Amino acid sequence: MPHIPLPDGVPGIRSLVMYRPDTGQHLYALAQALLRAGSPDSTLTSAERELIAAFVSKQNQTDFCMKSHAAASRHLFADQRDLVDQTLTNPETAPISAKLKALLIIADHVRADARTVSDNLVAAAREKGATDGDIHDTVLIAASFCMYNRYVDGLATLTPTDPAAYDAMGERMGTLGYQLPTPQASPATHLL
Amino acid sequence: MPHIPLPDGVPGIRSLVMYRPDTGQHLYALAQALLRAGSPDSTLTSAERELIAAFVSKQNQTDFCMKSHAAASRHLFADQRDLVDQTLTNPETAPISAKLKALLIIADHVRADARTVSDNLVAAAREKGATDGDIHDTVLIAASFCMYNRYVDGLATLTPTDPAAYDAMGERMGTLGYQLPTPQASPATHLL
Repeated sequence: MPHIPLPDGVPGIRSLVMYRPDTGQHLYALAQALLRAGSPDSTLTSAERELIAAFVSKQNQTDFCMKSHAAASRHLFADQRDLVDQTLTNPETAPISAKLKALLIIADHVRADARTVSDNLVAAAREKGATDGDIHDTVLIAASFCMYNRYVDGLATLTPTDPAAYDAMGERMGTLGYQLPTPQASPATHLL
Repeated sequence: MPHIPLPDGVPGIRSLVMYRPDTGQHLYALAQALLRAGSPDSTLTSAERELIAAFVSKQNQTDFCMKSHAAASRHLFADQRDLVDQTLTNPETAPISAKLKALLIIADHVRADARTVSDNLVAAAREKGATDGDIHDTVLIAASFCMYNRYVDGLATLTPTDPAAYDAMGERMGTLGYQLPTPQASPATHLL
C-alpha cells in the first residue's frame, strides 16, 4: 500500500508524477534528456543508457525501476537484447564493451558512495575509450537513479509482478520516451 | 580536481549545469518547484524545505550542498536562523516542530534505504500534523538530494572553503531561487 493516496492501480513513478505533475514534469524531462540524448561528445547509445539505469536500480534493489528500464534496454538493443540480462547477471563476464564495463564500475561507485569515484577509475574508463561526456552522463544517470529509486521505494508505490507489464512499459519507453501522463488517459494506459 | 573539464573556478552543481545545460535546466527547475513551491496541501515553508535538503546533504557528507542549502535556509528563516545549525547539530534537541522532526526521520530513512520508510514512521509524522503533501515532498526532497549530492561528489567538483562564499550563495538562493546560469554572466557571478 502506498504511503499517500495515489491513482489506483498505476505503478511506480507514473503514479507519483500524476500525484504532483509540477515536479513530475521535470523528472520526466530529465530522464528524456539523459537517457535519449547525450552530452555532445558522448558515445553511449540509448540502449546502453537504459542498461546503466537498470544496473543501478538492480544494485539499489528497486525492482520496479530495474525491470522497466531493463525492458526498455532490451527493446532498444533489439537483436542484441540478451546483453541486458547477461550484464545484469554478471557485468564482468557479459559480452559488452570494455568501455561500458568501466563505466558500470563508476556507476556503482556513484551509487554506493560517490566520493569514492577516483582518478584511477576515471582514467581506466578513458583508456577503454570513454569520453568526458560518457563519464559525465554515467555519473548523472547513476545519481538520478539513486533519486528515482528512492522516490518509488520511499512512498511504497505499486510494483507489478507480471513480466508482461514490463515488456509493454519497455516498448513504450523505447519508442515514445518519457512523456508526462495526461489525466485524460484511460486507466489501462497508466498500467504501462 | 574535477574529473572532467568544468568552467574554471565555478563551484559545485553550478559548474555541472554549465557543462551540460540541457540536463541542468531540469535539475534547476526541479529544485525550484520542490524547494520553493509545495504540494497543494503541504505545510512546509521554503526555509524548512532547504533545511531538509541541508540535513540530507550533511548525512551524505556532501559539504558543498550542505553548506549552500544551510545558508539558504538561514536566509529564509531570518530572525530564527539559529534553528538551522541547532537542527544540523542535533535534530532531536533542536527547537523545531515535532512534525518537522518526524519528517527528518523519514528523510534520513529515504537517504539510507528508502525501503525502510515504514507505515509506522509515516503514521508518526501524521500524528504530529504532517499532511500527504508534506510526506510526499519530504521523500522527494530527500531522494533528489541523494542525486544532487552524488552528482557533485561523483565528478569531484570544486567545494569552496570560505564561509563567506556560502553566505552569498544562500542569499542568492533564498531571494532569486534556482536559475540556470547564463554563459554571458561574469566569472564573479558564477562564484556564488
